[in-house]
Amino acid sequence: MASLPKAILDLVTYFERLPGIGPKSATRLAFYILNAPESFSKEFSESLVALKNKIVICEECFGVSEEALCEVCRDPKRDKKVIWVVEKAIDMMALENVGGVKGVYHVLGGLINPLDHVGPDDIKIEELMRRLKEGEVEEIVLATNSTMEGEATALYIKKEVKDIGLDVKVSRLGSGLPIGADLEFADQATLSRSMESRREI
Amino acid sequence: MASLPKAILDLVTYFERLPGIGPKSATRLAFYILNAPESFSKEFSESLVALKNKIVICEECFGVSEEALCEVCRDPKRDKKVIWVVEKAIDMMALENVGGVKGVYHVLGGLINPLDHVGPDDIKIEELMRRLKEGEVEEIVLATNSTMEGEATALYIKKEVKDIGLDVKVSRLGSGLPIGADLEFADQATLSRSMESRREI
Repeated sequence: MASLPKAILDLVTYFERLPGIGPKSATRLAFYILNAPESFSKEFSESLVALKNKIVICEECFGVSEEALCEVCRDPKRDKKVIWVVEKAIDMMALENVGGVKGVYHVLGGLINPLDHVGPDDIKIEELMRRLKEGEVEEIVLATNSTMEGEATALYIKKEVKDIGLDVKVSRLGSGLPIGADLEFADQATLSRSMESRREI
Repeated sequence: MASLPKAILDLVTYFERLPGIGPKSATRLAFYILNAPESFSKEFSESLVALKNKIVICEECFGVSEEALCEVCRDPKRDKKVIWVVEKAIDMMALENVGGVKGVYHVLGGLINPLDHVGPDDIKIEELMRRLKEGEVEEIVLATNSTMEGEATALYIKKEVKDIGLDVKVSRLGSGLPIGADLEFADQATLSRSMESRREI
C-alpha cells in the first residue's frame, strides 16, 4: 500500500489540524492546491505569515487590528458611551457585519468556565471595569453566547458592576426563537426564554 | 461598519477559494490560525510552498510523486500486468488506502466531457494505449467514477482497446448499492445496476 508523497502528507496534516476539516477534506484541499496555479499557493503562504506579523491586539478593546487602536476604536463617530462586550474578536466582527452597533467593543478573550479552569482573572474583566470606572460609559451590552459559560460570564460582570457601585446600565442580547425557526422543533430552554421575552406588537 | 483588518481579510479570501469552504468557515479558519502558535502558521506556510516545489508527475503513471517515478511504479513487487485506470491522483490514493490493488495505475488527468470541451486527446488516453502496446499488460481496470463522464470515458477506452486489436482484458469497477445503504432510499439507476450485477452467495 503506497502512501502519498511526503510533501502532500505534510500539507494534509496542517489542513487536518484546522477546525472542522477531517482527513478526507484535508486530502482534497491539498490536491486542490497541488492543481491550482503556483501563484495561489505562494500568495496563500505569504498571507499566512503576514497574518501573524501584521495583526496586533487593539490596546483599547482587545479586538484585532493592524494598528495600536482598531478601526472601531479609532473611529470618532463611534459612541464611546456604549460598550458591547463579546467573547472573541470574531464575535465583534459578526456584530459589525449586522451593522447596528453604534458603540464600541470590549473583547473578553474567553468566558468564565470553571471546568476548563478559566476564572474571571483569566479574561479581560478587570480591563472592562477600568474602562467603566473612567466614567464616560452609560451602557454595556453583554453580547456573550447563550451558553452556560456565556450566561455565567454575563452574570459575573453584572454583579461586578453592581458591587463596585458603578452607574452603568447593563443589558444582555435578546434570547428567543431564531428568525425562521419552527416552534415545534425549538428546545425547551429557548422556547421558555422566548415566552418570557414576549413583546407587544 | 468596520471590516476585518486587511491581513485577516486576505487570508479569508484564500481560504474561501478552497473547495467546500464558505465565507463563515473561511473567517473561522483565519481566526483559528491567528490564535494558533506562530510556529503553526509558519510551518503551514512552508508546507504550501514545498508542495509545489517538490511534487512532480510520475513519468509512468502520471500520479503524484517526489521522484521521477512514483512509489507504486518504483515498487518491484507490483504486478505491472494489471493497470488500474483512474481520473485523478487522489482516486489512486483512495484505492491504495483500501489496499487491494496489486497492480499499477494510470492517471488520466480528467474525464471525457463534451460540455466542458474535454475530448479524448485532452486526457492521457494515448499514453495509456502506448503502455498497453508494449505488450506486457493483461488487464486494465477502468476505475473511473460512476458518473456520465466516468462511464463515457470507460466506454471510449474499451472501444479504443478493441479498435487497436489489443489482447487486453478490460474490466470496470463494480456498481451497486453502497455497503450499509438502505434499499428504500437508493436511486433507480443504482438499484437497477445492483439488480443486474447480483451474485450467487
